[in-house]
Amino acid sequence: MKINESYLLKDDYVFTKINKNVAQFKEKYPKKRILNLGIGDVTCAMNRKLIEVMANALYEQTNKKTFKGYPPETGYDFLKNAIVNKYALKGISFICDEIFISNGAGCDVTNILNLFHNLTAVIADPTYPAYLNSNKFYGNDIILLPLTKQNNYKLLPYGLMEDRSYLIYICSPNNPTGVTLNHNELKTWVDFANKTQSIILFDNAYESFVEDNSPKSIYEVEGAKTCAIEVSSFSKSAGFTNLRCGFTIVPKELMRQNNSINNMWLKHQCTFFNGVPYHIQKGALFVLSSEGEKICQKNIKYYKTNVQILEKYLKYNNFEFVSSNNSPYIWVKIPTTQTSWQYFNFLLNTYGIVCVPGSGFGKCGEGYIRFSAFATREEINLAMKKLTKSAQYEIV
Amino acid sequence: MKINESYLLKDDYVFTKINKNVAQFKEKYPKKRILNLGIGDVTCAMNRKLIEVMANALYEQTNKKTFKGYPPETGYDFLKNAIVNKYALKGISFICDEIFISNGAGCDVTNILNLFHNLTAVIADPTYPAYLNSNKFYGNDIILLPLTKQNNYKLLPYGLMEDRSYLIYICSPNNPTGVTLNHNELKTWVDFANKTQSIILFDNAYESFVEDNSPKSIYEVEGAKTCAIEVSSFSKSAGFTNLRCGFTIVPKELMRQNNSINNMWLKHQCTFFNGVPYHIQKGALFVLSSEGEKICQKNIKYYKTNVQILEKYLKYNNFEFVSSNNSPYIWVKIPTTQTSWQYFNFLLNTYGIVCVPGSGFGKCGEGYIRFSAFATREEINLAMKKLTKSAQYEIV
Repeated sequence: MKINESYLLKDDYVFTKINKNVAQFKEKYPKKRILNLGIGDVTCAMNRKLIEVMANALYEQTNKKTFKGYPPETGYDFLKNAIVNKYALKGISFICDEIFISNGAGCDVTNILNLFHNLTAVIADPTYPAYLNSNKFYGNDIILLPLTKQNNYKLLPYGLMEDRSYLIYICSPNNPTGVTLNHNELKTWVDFANKTQSIILFDNAYESFVEDNSPKSIYEVEGAKTCAIEVSSFSKSAGFTNLRCGFTIVPKELMRQNNSINNMWLKHQCTFFNGVPYHIQKGALFVLSSEGEKICQKNIKYYKTNVQILEKYLKYNNFEFVSSNNSPYIWVKIPTTQTSWQYFNFLLNTYGIVCVPGSGFGKCGEGYIRFSAFATREEINLAMKKLTKSAQYEIV
Repeated sequence: MKINESYLLKDDYVFTKINKNVAQFKEKYPKKRILNLGIGDVTCAMNRKLIEVMANALYEQTNKKTFKGYPPETGYDFLKNAIVNKYALKGISFICDEIFISNGAGCDVTNILNLFHNLTAVIADPTYPAYLNSNKFYGNDIILLPLTKQNNYKLLPYGLMEDRSYLIYICSPNNPTGVTLNHNELKTWVDFANKTQSIILFDNAYESFVEDNSPKSIYEVEGAKTCAIEVSSFSKSAGFTNLRCGFTIVPKELMRQNNSINNMWLKHQCTFFNGVPYHIQKGALFVLSSEGEKICQKNIKYYKTNVQILEKYLKYNNFEFVSSNNSPYIWVKIPTTQTSWQYFNFLLNTYGIVCVPGSGFGKCGEGYIRFSAFATREEINLAMKKLTKSAQYEIV
């Protein structure tokens, strides 16, 4: 027995390092206010009705007749059916067995690696760090595709050999750049994946932010069912980051080497996972109702207004940045010659503003920072006013 | 990229097969009552005060000031501190960083495999199936140690080569036999593990049932901190099977090849896991209070009375069985020449009684069945009366 030496890699997980720096700052200046535009964690309080639904379901546990033991490993049918219906409304048909309720997207995008051997992962640079780190821990080969100003930060299969297959991570809108792939661009990926017998892992965590014509599911693209797994979450739309609930779709049509990936994932989940609590799934069910959808829309609108405020101030202060109506993140070019971490420390120490240094998302993120619009309105306004003051302009 | 062919193994997961057989039976005889003494899932309704604690914590999510986003990956300090205190009372000292709050023991006993390469697992036969299946999926070597009448169903390191290291699964009281290892026996394992640089994975899920002198933690045994990981759960004591919360201890002293296993598990959890909801951890905290402990004791007493009823009837009907005051499971020798599955089907079809066929736990389980005392009192009584009637005795 040997230890898996991949776990000995120097700990450079960006969010851990940010937390360390912020903790040091707090210790040094206990009275200074922190304005957290860093980690993409929601801040809106949850709707009372939604919490009531969950609390009521929780109270069912006090009655012998309604007490529930182990949840089904792949989720309760009531929630799976609601998800099937949600997709049916878009004209995409699934059956319950293709839906796997999870305790959030993060676990599934990483644990899925268990299903494969000799894997080459195709990952954007910059990227959500867990894609990269989980593949490193598995000792997989990794191909990084740079997202730069030159290619409009668009992830496309240019330069990939067509004589082999890959696990391709697509997050659209992308974290951290916020750039969305349109239908044609996703079609290019789907065709490439089907041709090369690759599998697309489509991280749909930010789906609810998309307001233009970009697909809100990879399955809107013809041919995706034979090559794509879609991972979704209630975290960002319904504020579930604390409550941990999401879902993963593995279509029955997704076969590799004549075997059903759906069957393999079912075996994985029944062995490595014990399901999501009943009351939380009841909450997720409510989120999918028309009343729940309105609640989500209210949250999204709040964060999108934050995006607009960020855009206004950044523009006023002559920052160069990437932003869209489809994403809660703004990808900002650093206006000085500082590195991402230097600029991060400058913002923290000067204004108490926390961002994410772009290099934490990969080499191509160097020279950038990410602002998250998931902060409170007050934090957003205060942070931007401080930045503006520093720019020695008066904001109108 | 190849699929991990270990996932193609014939699906013989015992609980899945039981569910299938029971579903078929229900379809055939929709009016017949099922008496479920099979899966080890709790049935006692949860205490109202405990649920209130969780519901109140859930309502904190509706207030901007008390709203919580992502939980810390390794758990909230309030719960980790309470666990540290629980162990301190037994004279075992830990620090918070050695405690990892999990969403149940099942996930951690399986995911821990990510930390190792070239692993040889040492597993009891019969055993909890997830130990075996997870190792099969990882393609690990497996050594099965038979638990038989001849060795009093005691798991001991007899016959294991001392020139190599292993990952050793110990569940005490054992699932399914219910047999506990005493201090000396566990000391034998700890000494063996330290000598061979093996690691013991101590599954402590049934700790709260132990009422004799057997250790209720592997760390009661001198030397365990340098060789053992302990996995615990609130499922069986506090009825948390639906709510999903447990904890895993990885001592700082546990080093292999000069590296900290604690650090490796921290990295794993921060990448592959997103933590447990705040309100559920608040519930777990309450479970550890003196009031919570009383609630657990009440549950345990209920299930233990079930054990006594099972014992009485089985004895009366001249069944040969293994049972103890330390376990919710009874390991019953099949009184006929039928196989475990044949006898399972006989009990199901004749009386509607669901047990677990022993062979589902491994080859050495053939010829046995497991009865679970986690059923309701009514089910236990009814099942035993039916069995007795069949034995053509009158129970007094």
